[in-house]
Formats: sequence, C-alpha cells, structure tokens
Amino acid sequence: MSLLEETLASIAPTDSPAKAAARARLEQLSMPFWALGRLMDLAEDLAGMTGSARPAVQRKTIVVMAADHGVVAEAVSAYPQEVTTQMVANFVAGGASINALARLAGAQVTVVDMGVAGDLSHLGGAVLDRKVGPGTRNMARGPAMAHDEAVRAVEAGIGVARELGPSTDVFGTGEMGIGNTTASSAIVAAVSGATAEEVTGRGTGIGDEQLRHKAEIVRQALEVNRPDPADGLDLLAKVGGFEIGGIAGLILAAAAMRKPILVDGFISTAGALVAQALSPLSVQYMIAAHRSVERGHRIALETLGKKPLLDMDLRLGEGTGAALAMNLVEAAVRVLTEVATFEEASVSHSNV
Amino acid sequence: MSLLEETLASIAPTDSPAKAAARARLEQLSMPFWALGRLMDLAEDLAGMTGSARPAVQRKTIVVMAADHGVVAEAVSAYPQEVTTQMVANFVAGGASINALARLAGAQVTVVDMGVAGDLSHLGGAVLDRKVGPGTRNMARGPAMAHDEAVRAVEAGIGVARELGPSTDVFGTGEMGIGNTTASSAIVAAVSGATAEEVTGRGTGIGDEQLRHKAEIVRQALEVNRPDPADGLDLLAKVGGFEIGGIAGLILAAAAMRKPILVDGFISTAGALVAQALSPLSVQYMIAAHRSVERGHRIALETLGKKPLLDMDLRLGEGTGAALAMNLVEAAVRVLTEVATFEEASVSHSNV
Repeated sequence: MSLLEETLASIAPTDSPAKAAARARLEQLSMPFWALGRLMDLAEDLAGMTGSARPAVQRKTIVVMAADHGVVAEAVSAYPQEVTTQMVANFVAGGASINALARLAGAQVTVVDMGVAGDLSHLGGAVLDRKVGPGTRNMARGPAMAHDEAVRAVEAGIGVARELGPSTDVFGTGEMGIGNTTASSAIVAAVSGATAEEVTGRGTGIGDEQLRHKAEIVRQALEVNRPDPADGLDLLAKVGGFEIGGIAGLILAAAAMRKPILVDGFISTAGALVAQALSPLSVQYMIAAHRSVERGHRIALETLGKKPLLDMDLRLGEGTGAALAMNLVEAAVRVLTEVATFEEASVSHSNV
Repeated sequence: MSLLEETLASIAPTDSPAKAAARARLEQLSMPFWALGRLMDLAEDLAGMTGSARPAVQRKTIVVMAADHGVVAEAVSAYPQEVTTQMVANFVAGGASINALARLAGAQVTVVDMGVAGDLSHLGGAVLDRKVGPGTRNMARGPAMAHDEAVRAVEAGIGVARELGPSTDVFGTGEMGIGNTTASSAIVAAVSGATAEEVTGRGTGIGDEQLRHKAEIVRQALEVNRPDPADGLDLLAKVGGFEIGGIAGLILAAAAMRKPILVDGFISTAGALVAQALSPLSVQYMIAAHRSVERGHRIALETLGKKPLLDMDLRLGEGTGAALAMNLVEAAVRVLTEVATFEEASVSHSNV
C-alpha cells in the first residue's frame, strides 16, 4: 500500500464520545446556555478531532508550502515569478507577515519548497526541500503536472506532517506561489461547478482588464484539461500546483493523526478541496480560519461545507489567517477546560 | 470643574501624524497592497489613538462593572437577581469565562461593584467598591436613578480608569448585571430611534412570550421616562444602570488618556452610546470587539458607527468578546512593527 493509500485508509470519523463529553460539560458552564456560541461549537469539534474532552492545542505549527506556476506565462499576476523565491527568503529571515503573526500565536513556522522555480540553496537547511519540480507547467496549454507528480506532491505533504506530528498539536496551512490564485480558481470552479468568472479574483491586486483575462485563462485551463472533480489527483495534476498538493497531503495526514488543522485562505481551501475529494472524512479535521476577500473563497468554503472563524478582509495567504485563528482555538479549549460549572461556582441555574 | 467636565474637556481627536506615519509604513510592507485588510485598518487606528507609530498594547486590563437593576421586578430575565452577586464571586474566584479568556489574552481583570444589590463583603478587597446604590429603581415605573447618581456612576468609571491607567495600555469593557439587557435595549432604542421590539433580545435566554413582555417593558420605560437621547446623563438616569454609567466613564477616561478601549457586547455598547452622547470624540478611541447575537446589537453598533472585529455568536458579556479581540489588537501592532518592507526584505514590487 502506498503512503497515500495508507494515509487515506487510516482517516476515521471524529470521536463521538469525546465530543459528547465536551458538550455535556459545556452545557453546564456558569453562563446562559451556549452563550459563547461558535467558540463552544469549536470546543466540541476539537474534542471530537483529538478524541479528548481536554484537547491539547498548545504546540502549533504553520506549514508554509511554496511553489511556482507555469501559468504565470499568461500574465495572470501583478508580481514577477521571482517574488516566490524572494518571499521564501523573507520567511526564513523572519520578516514576513506569517512570521510576525506566528510569533504572536506561539506557533512554529516550517517552510517547504514544494517546487519553487528559483534557487534556494543559499537558504540552506532552513527550508525543507521537497521539490517536485521547478514550478508546474502552464495549465492553459495542458496539464500542470504529471499524475505521478501529483502523487509525489501529496505524499510530500503527508511526509512533512508525519515529521512534524510528534511536536505538533494543531496544524495551520500556509502557502506562497506567484500564480497560485489562478490554479486555485480552476480547482474551485471544477469542484463547485461555478463559472471561472465567479471564482476568479484579483490575487496580488490586478486591475479590471487583467482580471477578465485571468478568468479567461482559468476557463481555458478547464476546457483544455477537463479535470475530474471527483478525482483529487486528476484535479491536482491538471489544474493544481505542487504547494496545493502539499497542503492536501498535510491535511490528510493531520486527519489521519487526529490533529486539528486550520485551513488558511483561498489557496489553502483549494488544497482542502483536493483533500476532500481524496477523503470526504478528512473535512471533519479541518477548521476554516477565515474568509478571504479573494473572490471565489466564499464559494470554495461553501463547497467544503465550512463556516470560517474570522472575516477580516485578509487576502495575503502565507498562513496568516490560520495564525490569527490559533488564538480562537486556544480560547475554545480554555472555555472547555477552565470555566467553572454552575455547581462548581455555586451559581443559581436559570429559572425558566 | 467637575471630574466629568474635566475629562470631557481633555478628550482630543486621534493623532493624524502618527496615523499617517503608520499608514506610510503599512503601505510599504512586503505584501500586496493592504493585503491584511482590517488588521491594517486597526493598526492605523491604534497609531492614531496612542499617538505613536509603534503603539503600546502589551498591558491589558478588562474592567468588569457589576450592578443590579430594579426592572427585574417586571420578570424580564431568565435568572434571579442573586446571580449578579454569585457571578461576581465567580469572577473573584477566577472560574468565570472572562477569567479564562483574560488569562489567555494576558489581561488583568478588575471587578467593580457599581451597584450590586447583594452583599459582597465576604469578597473583601478583591472587588473595587464603587457602589452608587443597591441596584437601580424599576425604570418601568420611573427613572432608574437620580441625575446625581448618574453623574456619580460615570465619575466612578472615570476614577477606575485613572487608577488603572498607569498600568494599562489597552482597556476592555465588561459587565455583569441581571436585567441589564433590558436597560441597554431602552438606551439603544432611545438613541437609534428603533422600536423596542427591534432592539430587545433574549438576554439570558428567555422564551418567545417573555421576550414580547420584555419588549413591552422597554417600550413602557421609554414612555414613562422620555429620556433625551442627546443628553447622556439624562439617558443614563432614566433608563440606564450603574454599571452602564461606569462603562461610559471608563470609555471617556480612556479616550482622555489616549488609550484604546475594546467595547465588548450589547450592554457595553449601550455604555458606549452614553459616552458618545457625552463626547462624540470619544468614539475615536473605541474598538468594537464583536457583534453579539443579542437582537439590537447590530443597530447599536451602527448607531455608534463601528464595525465589529469578531462575529462568533457570543451573547455572554462579562468582557469575553473584548478579551478575545485583544489578540487582534496585538496582531495589528505586530504587523505594523515587525513585518519587513519590500526594501528591507529585498522583494520585488508589483509590476502593475
């Protein structure tokens, strides 16, 4: 059995008894019924994911998957491709947004080269080398990658999650890759059935004319490749990206290890849709961190069946939304484990 | 000049040069333009409030103002009045939701007796005694308090903020008081012009019939008292509460000290509306922490002119939403002060 098959086979539903135990305690806390709303829903979910009514969430890791995209040849981005390499160096130097927000969250940042086109050798061991290739091919003209490259990308993500698993309670997804909103739009369109226009956004900040062109490229990529939305590997190979495959693998392995994983923004959600296609059960371990302003993210989240925790008009990626939402995960567990019940606090119950 | 007059006179607009300096840096950060959206808006606002492009937000204090309400005689709550006293004891013991969430936020919790009906002497010095009276009178039959009691409540809040000011960078409001959603609904209706029905919610969790009755009590309180919405003290005296006055004072003093203050939920927003009536400028120092599910909070926030940071279906009060949002305040400052610019990180600019 391959690493991917083994991982898919070991994903089980979340733990009902732990969830029920958490719910029973939450219902007795010294407050009006379920008065902390979605924080309590989250606490219940975390108990189910971890199989514990006292979920461990202390050790946090954001995995930033980086890769390049051949579709940049179609002028879909406001930034040149070299920015992927430059931003990876920025992550390593600790100067990027994800570094600042991960420090605040007390989260470790692991940067993975899933297929950056540029040379990262000067960064030494600070970046995990899992390069599948020097960027994908141009999906507007044919498949972004070969089927076996898709498998390697997903398995690389699984491998990273397995290495980090022993030191991680909660994962967060992150990514960097000039051109990757274009690939993500194609994935979201294929899975949701929405049109290219409905799911293609401004990415790095393109203008109206370039946006129309980008949507046309997405439409073209779908027409040329005709990905099968029910086949996660076909979807990834035809219109995905190496970092998107890495994110899918990371999610699948987190689910197999019964660890919660915060899904960041638009690109991460595209990775989550690939994971969902490979294993519908894996969705039970995903937490949607936020809703991006990137057009298409709303549809992507609806397709995944997730309501995001935050809605802060973010559109950066890198894992920044996941890092921000880590605090809400911790807050949910604090409520579950630290708040006194009516009885413990000697507070009178509701008289209705 | 009275303490209140002095405080109102010392509230100045936020600092434009500091705000502009923050904006200039945020625009150069190594990311697509303003890609962290509302986090960057918040960073800019914090610079304006504090007068610094490196705003201090490390030392956080949540002030939980507690008081009772004579209107509970009209059966508006699902809980008996003794719960106010019991929950104050819970705050002191550290077992309430606000304690758990403040610990996570690294915030100090200060509990203030603004007018609890029960005996708190067994709690000793753990609760600041600023009792204006043993609960308000029943606003459905006449004014909730005398005009001079309204002044004393607001000035008590100012006094608490002044005491805590030297050890606080960011304030958060909180409250406890059985019956205080009823008073808050009356304030919000008076200021917004909305009907009692539009701004009266389930509070501690009352059913449909009791909700209709509660809205009728709010309508009656407004008809009996006819508060002047432009006169914050009249509003507070006629349909307010001692803790609501304390919150208004806390906000006014925070604004006078140029310190940001996170406004929690529905009751805190009613206090903010009283502060706004007394000093429209004070609104510049307020940050709306979250939107409660309590009916009327949306209208209250619109009347205040604030968009909330979080929307998590909370309806607890105590300052729990303010405590949760503290992390976003810190995150905003981290982005402003820790993220490298394009130049610092040697990242290529947009080519559009």
